[in-house]
Amino acid sequence: MGVYLSQERKIVIIGCGAGGGTAAQFARKTDRKASVIIIEKDRYPQYSKCGLPYVISGIIPNFNDLIEFSEDWFKTAKIDLLLETTVEKIDTSKKIVIVKKGGNVIEKPYDSLIIATGAKPSIPPINNIKKGSNLIKGIFVLRTINDAKDISSSAKKGDNATIIGAGLIGLELAESLYKKKMKVTVVEALPSILANTLDKDMSKIVYDEILKQVNILTDHIATRIESNSGKITKVFIKDNKTGEEKYILTDLLVIATGLKPETALAKDADCKLNENGYIIVNNKCETSVKDVFAIGDCTEFKDFITKKSVPIGLGSIAVRQGISAGINAAGGNYTLLDGFLQTCTSEFFGMEIAAVGSSDENLITGKFNGLSLPHYFPGGKPIIIKVFANKDGKILGAQAVGDNAAQRINTLAAAILGGLDIETFRRLETAYAPPIAPTLDAITLACDIISAKLRKRQK
Amino acid sequence: MGVYLSQERKIVIIGCGAGGGTAAQFARKTDRKASVIIIEKDRYPQYSKCGLPYVISGIIPNFNDLIEFSEDWFKTAKIDLLLETTVEKIDTSKKIVIVKKGGNVIEKPYDSLIIATGAKPSIPPINNIKKGSNLIKGIFVLRTINDAKDISSSAKKGDNATIIGAGLIGLELAESLYKKKMKVTVVEALPSILANTLDKDMSKIVYDEILKQVNILTDHIATRIESNSGKITKVFIKDNKTGEEKYILTDLLVIATGLKPETALAKDADCKLNENGYIIVNNKCETSVKDVFAIGDCTEFKDFITKKSVPIGLGSIAVRQGISAGINAAGGNYTLLDGFLQTCTSEFFGMEIAAVGSSDENLITGKFNGLSLPHYFPGGKPIIIKVFANKDGKILGAQAVGDNAAQRINTLAAAILGGLDIETFRRLETAYAPPIAPTLDAITLACDIISAKLRKRQK
Repeated sequence: MGVYLSQERKIVIIGCGAGGGTAAQFARKTDRKASVIIIEKDRYPQYSKCGLPYVISGIIPNFNDLIEFSEDWFKTAKIDLLLETTVEKIDTSKKIVIVKKGGNVIEKPYDSLIIATGAKPSIPPINNIKKGSNLIKGIFVLRTINDAKDISSSAKKGDNATIIGAGLIGLELAESLYKKKMKVTVVEALPSILANTLDKDMSKIVYDEILKQVNILTDHIATRIESNSGKITKVFIKDNKTGEEKYILTDLLVIATGLKPETALAKDADCKLNENGYIIVNNKCETSVKDVFAIGDCTEFKDFITKKSVPIGLGSIAVRQGISAGINAAGGNYTLLDGFLQTCTSEFFGMEIAAVGSSDENLITGKFNGLSLPHYFPGGKPIIIKVFANKDGKILGAQAVGDNAAQRINTLAAAILGGLDIETFRRLETAYAPPIAPTLDAITLACDIISAKLRKRQK
Repeated sequence: MGVYLSQERKIVIIGCGAGGGTAAQFARKTDRKASVIIIEKDRYPQYSKCGLPYVISGIIPNFNDLIEFSEDWFKTAKIDLLLETTVEKIDTSKKIVIVKKGGNVIEKPYDSLIIATGAKPSIPPINNIKKGSNLIKGIFVLRTINDAKDISSSAKKGDNATIIGAGLIGLELAESLYKKKMKVTVVEALPSILANTLDKDMSKIVYDEILKQVNILTDHIATRIESNSGKITKVFIKDNKTGEEKYILTDLLVIATGLKPETALAKDADCKLNENGYIIVNNKCETSVKDVFAIGDCTEFKDFITKKSVPIGLGSIAVRQGISAGINAAGGNYTLLDGFLQTCTSEFFGMEIAAVGSSDENLITGKFNGLSLPHYFPGGKPIIIKVFANKDGKILGAQAVGDNAAQRINTLAAAILGGLDIETFRRLETAYAPPIAPTLDAITLACDIISAKLRKRQK
């Protein structure tokens, strides 16, 4: 830790995840003389949480590979990274943070404070899931390197694994455990998988593919755990429609039913939270408290389309907020767009999915089931695109499953950001060459379908 | 050929390439009762000219595979396709086309005429290249199936092949002949390859890669041919800088130095041509003559950025013009955008390239050399993006070499179409997941560089 002259700006960041780490970098870039301190309760510097399933599967060899910026990196950047250090309290009147490291309690003054405390897994009400305050042996969540290490060391070839929740993380993990040669069952309370990301007709394509490798039970709720000698043996599940109850033999169970924000410190510091407990921030990542910023999974911000509050659950957004908060906390000026498009992607069992913007059921949709290459060129892969537009033809959302789903969704994300309508976008010259893409891409042809629907309405 | 009542609209299309064939389809869709006739001098129905190099290489098994719509298809669609039929003259006062098939001359009346006569290879002034009006044996162009068949049957393993012109087609063919195990040399008059598509710094990356497989001589002009028993044996080339002349032993030579438009019929029909001989059309593909439309490689239209006239040299544009002309010729109304972005792509020796919009040297550029995946995820591939913006930060062009160059350029094409500026576009949430893309894609980071340059200018 350096010694700083009192006139130097003091920036304190709580949390060294994707958001906090990025904020520190951009604060440093913006004010080369500022004191920048990151306080992180965990023992690891900034690492990729999104990469955890791929270390469990073995695609990424070591957990240490996930570390994006090492302690040395922060040292070189003159950013004080305090690991295994907790913040006890934020005192916004004195502008200090009370920090505890080992037995010591220290006060850290700040001019700008960035709260990047993230979120923790939310545990659904399943009977006997805990003993005291701990999960029963064999039951896990997946949020930190330590969680992933625990899952990894418990995942034994041939054993039965059950995952509660068929969202992005649940399914990524399903593939990881399948690759570890476990027998995997995914239990989902909703009628379809990936319900936060894809419409049912789109997720059905993924479902059918995944079902070749793992068992999936949609419309089922986990009700209770049975254990033996303190270790899980069965999970009981109930069919939402019939009420029928059955059990799944389970050696390893992972809860992947979503997150809840870590906002105790922020609340205590009088930062305004929304009704779901997320810190409310503006397009500069400012909270309701002067000189206190917040970013990442502990915050909410507007949806770009609806302008309604949405929780930030994506690393890509946390990074963008980190850029903004880091610059602003250091005296710069970086405003975010007027809401987030929530562009997201993932891949399961070789199947790429992606989505952006709104999929409101009142929108007009066009779905095209095409190939990535002209029909005469060998090796074309399926690509299904669904586009959403309002009655004026303005593009408001898109979903994709298949070849280069993410890149195609990026193009639609740019279209949404540019306010393009269907008639303009379907005239866009997409890049064409036989080994690369057809003359009219699936993104164009999906829009053609909406165009036809809109013309029919006008008649 | 059907019998039509006189009140039915008569649509005649000259040429069954990508443009003409598409126009016929959309004319048919727009007016189910119209008579639609396509007159094609060649013996093949609509096929992919862009696919020809991949039949030569063997990636696509047969030339017939390139046929996109068969004679039967046209019959089913009630489109009269007259193959091996030439148009002798267009009489715009009588609104007839005088057609010759075999020995017969027939008059075809039209209400709407679409000229889609395309272009033919332009032959540079190389001494002794022709005997009479024919190219010397062993010298070819690549435009039609017949050209490709001739090249294919002459391409012998171990023989020397020389290609004049290092544009898209020249390099695609270089790879094809390399795959046929020929020893390939590409001769280019300009100082860099792909000069119409990429800046020199971008094409250099491709050049270095291609050079591992084939010989490339930039800044060299082919001056004369030497032949033996009427067959080419050598091509003499001159170094533009030193004037030094040398020869390349050549068994097979392909001219790939560009095209010139086939506009004799249009000119004769008083359609206005521009100074380079291309038919001038508007955003409805109308020519200067009433009820006469023109599309594809025989036409010019505005560049989207500069609004200056540019020749149409891309299949993707011909198809879009075909949609417009087909609909408009059949009484519908389909306007194109106010100019073409000229989005294009290709792939050589596994290296994908793409470009869109302007690369004017007065623009501000940002170039980023990145990876397709986060650094911690195995298998990330290089991607180099160069973005062009004006001094107000408006994005006007982009070039890419590497992983998913085409899809990334599509996203930038949408940004240009949407009038996005650097500050907005670099805030776009691109899709992120470790196996798919990094949190900040190369398309974002290239824009960050322009942003920094613009901020520096403002200071």
